[in-house]
Amino acid sequence: MHFPFKETRKKLLAGDFSGLFRLSKDKGTSYIHPSEVAKLFISIPAEKAIDAFKSFQTAQEIAVFPYLDNQLQKKVIRSLTKSRAAYILNELSSDDRTIFYSTLKGLELSNFLDFLTAPNKDALHKVLGYSDKSVARIINTEFATIESGMTIASAMEHLRKNHKDTEAANVIYVVDKNGKLIDDIPVRRFVLNDPHKKVEDILDGYCTSLKITDSKEDAVQKFKEYDRIVLPVTNDDNILLGVVTVDDVMDIAEQRDTAEIQKFGGIEELDYPYVKTPFFSLLKKRAGWLIVLFLGEMLTATAMGHFDGEIKKAVVLALFVPLIISSGGNSGSQAATLIIRAMALKELSFKDWWYVMRREILSGLSLGFILGSIGFIRISIWQNLGWYNYGVHWLLLAITIFFSLIGIVMWGTLSGSMIPMLLKRLKIDPATSSAPFVATLVDVTGLVIYFSIAAIFLKGTLL
Amino acid sequence: MHFPFKETRKKLLAGDFSGLFRLSKDKGTSYIHPSEVAKLFISIPAEKAIDAFKSFQTAQEIAVFPYLDNQLQKKVIRSLTKSRAAYILNELSSDDRTIFYSTLKGLELSNFLDFLTAPNKDALHKVLGYSDKSVARIINTEFATIESGMTIASAMEHLRKNHKDTEAANVIYVVDKNGKLIDDIPVRRFVLNDPHKKVEDILDGYCTSLKITDSKEDAVQKFKEYDRIVLPVTNDDNILLGVVTVDDVMDIAEQRDTAEIQKFGGIEELDYPYVKTPFFSLLKKRAGWLIVLFLGEMLTATAMGHFDGEIKKAVVLALFVPLIISSGGNSGSQAATLIIRAMALKELSFKDWWYVMRREILSGLSLGFILGSIGFIRISIWQNLGWYNYGVHWLLLAITIFFSLIGIVMWGTLSGSMIPMLLKRLKIDPATSSAPFVATLVDVTGLVIYFSIAAIFLKGTLL
Repeated sequence: MHFPFKETRKKLLAGDFSGLFRLSKDKGTSYIHPSEVAKLFISIPAEKAIDAFKSFQTAQEIAVFPYLDNQLQKKVIRSLTKSRAAYILNELSSDDRTIFYSTLKGLELSNFLDFLTAPNKDALHKVLGYSDKSVARIINTEFATIESGMTIASAMEHLRKNHKDTEAANVIYVVDKNGKLIDDIPVRRFVLNDPHKKVEDILDGYCTSLKITDSKEDAVQKFKEYDRIVLPVTNDDNILLGVVTVDDVMDIAEQRDTAEIQKFGGIEELDYPYVKTPFFSLLKKRAGWLIVLFLGEMLTATAMGHFDGEIKKAVVLALFVPLIISSGGNSGSQAATLIIRAMALKELSFKDWWYVMRREILSGLSLGFILGSIGFIRISIWQNLGWYNYGVHWLLLAITIFFSLIGIVMWGTLSGSMIPMLLKRLKIDPATSSAPFVATLVDVTGLVIYFSIAAIFLKGTLL
Repeated sequence: MHFPFKETRKKLLAGDFSGLFRLSKDKGTSYIHPSEVAKLFISIPAEKAIDAFKSFQTAQEIAVFPYLDNQLQKKVIRSLTKSRAAYILNELSSDDRTIFYSTLKGLELSNFLDFLTAPNKDALHKVLGYSDKSVARIINTEFATIESGMTIASAMEHLRKNHKDTEAANVIYVVDKNGKLIDDIPVRRFVLNDPHKKVEDILDGYCTSLKITDSKEDAVQKFKEYDRIVLPVTNDDNILLGVVTVDDVMDIAEQRDTAEIQKFGGIEELDYPYVKTPFFSLLKKRAGWLIVLFLGEMLTATAMGHFDGEIKKAVVLALFVPLIISSGGNSGSQAATLIIRAMALKELSFKDWWYVMRREILSGLSLGFILGSIGFIRISIWQNLGWYNYGVHWLLLAITIFFSLIGIVMWGTLSGSMIPMLLKRLKIDPATSSAPFVATLVDVTGLVIYFSIAAIFLKGTLL
């Protein structure tokens, strides 16, 4: 079943396309799946891939094209003759077509639109009118419909005559004369039931659908909840407009998670995978947030500047600054991570803020107590074993560290949990208040907490 | 289509189960999908949900049970009579059954195993023998098979007699006399082709399968690459053992991403959602890593201790410590995030280390130069506008900050990218070397870089 990837790749690089042509010959023996061809093409320089692509018959082109990555798709279309490019773009399934055009802008978009037939162009224009977060951007309009009065046998006859063998045909839709959605039937139910039965007798009466104005996120959520492979999309009048298939939804869930992870890491969401992102565009995505965080962290220098008198008197206080602020940052990251992810998976919403707050204050106190105790013990041991001399007032210093850690860890936990909830409430993506952002806030305020607690315990002795 | 969630929930809490019973009445009007019932049950106290569950007919129990979360499933089974519990557990589809039993341990596992019929018990024992990361843990053994010599019509006849209407029947498998897998056919292809054709004439010759020893991650990858809704699972002899359905694979992809995000946030992977995790178990998951990170960060106090002489002489150096080390931490997080995610999505592997290293050194230098310049400008402005007095040697200090930032950002970027790759090579989950871990390492080493650069530029003036 597995085809020789490395070998075929080597051949391809040498300009020998024979490895790909098993696609059309020897049916049933060692076929190459279009996704495997695409994987090969993506792994070699674009020019080589384009040459190989040009050696294909149209049927193969149509099969392989949707699996290529967006960057290569554009290069391929640009390098083909106009008629061939137009043929491919018009033959694509409507969801693949929308996804392709969604990444184009300005002049290129209008040039590429010229390739389309009038109906395809119209349909695309309609879809591109919706937000790119909307489920409209992934609908497939090649769905299969029947009417409920038909027998199963005549419904099958109808489908055979009118529909292509595509993934959208895994579920069939029952509509009324006006195109309003009545119910959905997995196509397997035709096969598993007596063909003399009427369609209305095998309907189960559950029919979950999406609205055209729903977000892609809503689609992910519905597919997960209802374990579906296709969901119908309707307008406000319940007219069936298209379907969404699970493969596109899986891609969206993965993109959502990748974006979330990248935002956690303090990077703007990448448009392409790491290895496919050009150096300067990657640098830009990273530099933006890094500079924002740096400007934020500059406040630590200002805050520290306010306490330079204290540091001069008690240099020992400075030694614990990194330990103290990183503890606040780490506990804040933990809380932010938990809350942001729980909100992304719809386990939590803003209305749960009071529950979360109580829980996180208690967590913060407990965690702060644990770290504070370790800090206290650390100073006591170092002092008493003579590993470092914190001076005669070491015990007061240890107490300062203990209480500072409780205060800062609690503060970190609280900010880490509440800021994402607040942002969500303000309809800002909570992942933006990602871990490093919370850490920066906690760093600055943590310093103030630390030096204030030090002032309380050390006034008259060290300070 | 949408049922009144809040209203039904209120009724349920008051002990009125009538809202649920539309499930069995008024077919085709306002049916409640089992997943909606489950959502209701999960949102109310377990005892209430169990009472409502008990009011169901068996058909409803079977429909709703797989959608409940694992915690509630266990409670339900414990509270039912033995015969009813046994009925449910035996009627579950094999993948749902395995997933349920996978979370049980020790005595409870053996007690619950007693509910199963001998064949179900045997099958489960076999599957539980595989690693819980293996695809064996999600296979469904109720697949539908035919032989290639049949006509489509007789194949449909055969399926009608022998198979239940389950999601596993969306794709039919062609096997030989020994049960070896020959090809797969989406069931739609039976409907869309002339029933007099032979099955072998509608085979496409592509058949991608999973091995029973493959990991769940491999399954996610294959579903994504090949855009499938079901994939067959075979043993080494190509005998068909079961199928994996896309709904389970979506859940696994989501779990993988949640685990990855939690590890990034410096938390051990949670077993249940945030809101369902008991307080002390959540505390344990957080405290573990927080303590490890705290112990790591303690080295910063030791490192700072080595430079206490320098700090005493030039307190001004201490002011920039948080800024300097957080910049290293942030750039390290960025790099770690990019690389870990790219490896999780199989875009990168260890063999790409040299490419990544060159790229990240260049990125680190550029980002360090940008931040260094901002730092330099910051000190110059504050000094010349009289906002803070860094002393006569402010220019040397600004130069120290400039070069320290270049060094530390580059070091952070390099560690952030190389440590995950190294861990991957050592077969340790790279997400464990998550952002806070890299940040801790960079904090400690960053201090050494900073004070060493300071020694070079400030010797004889401030130091």
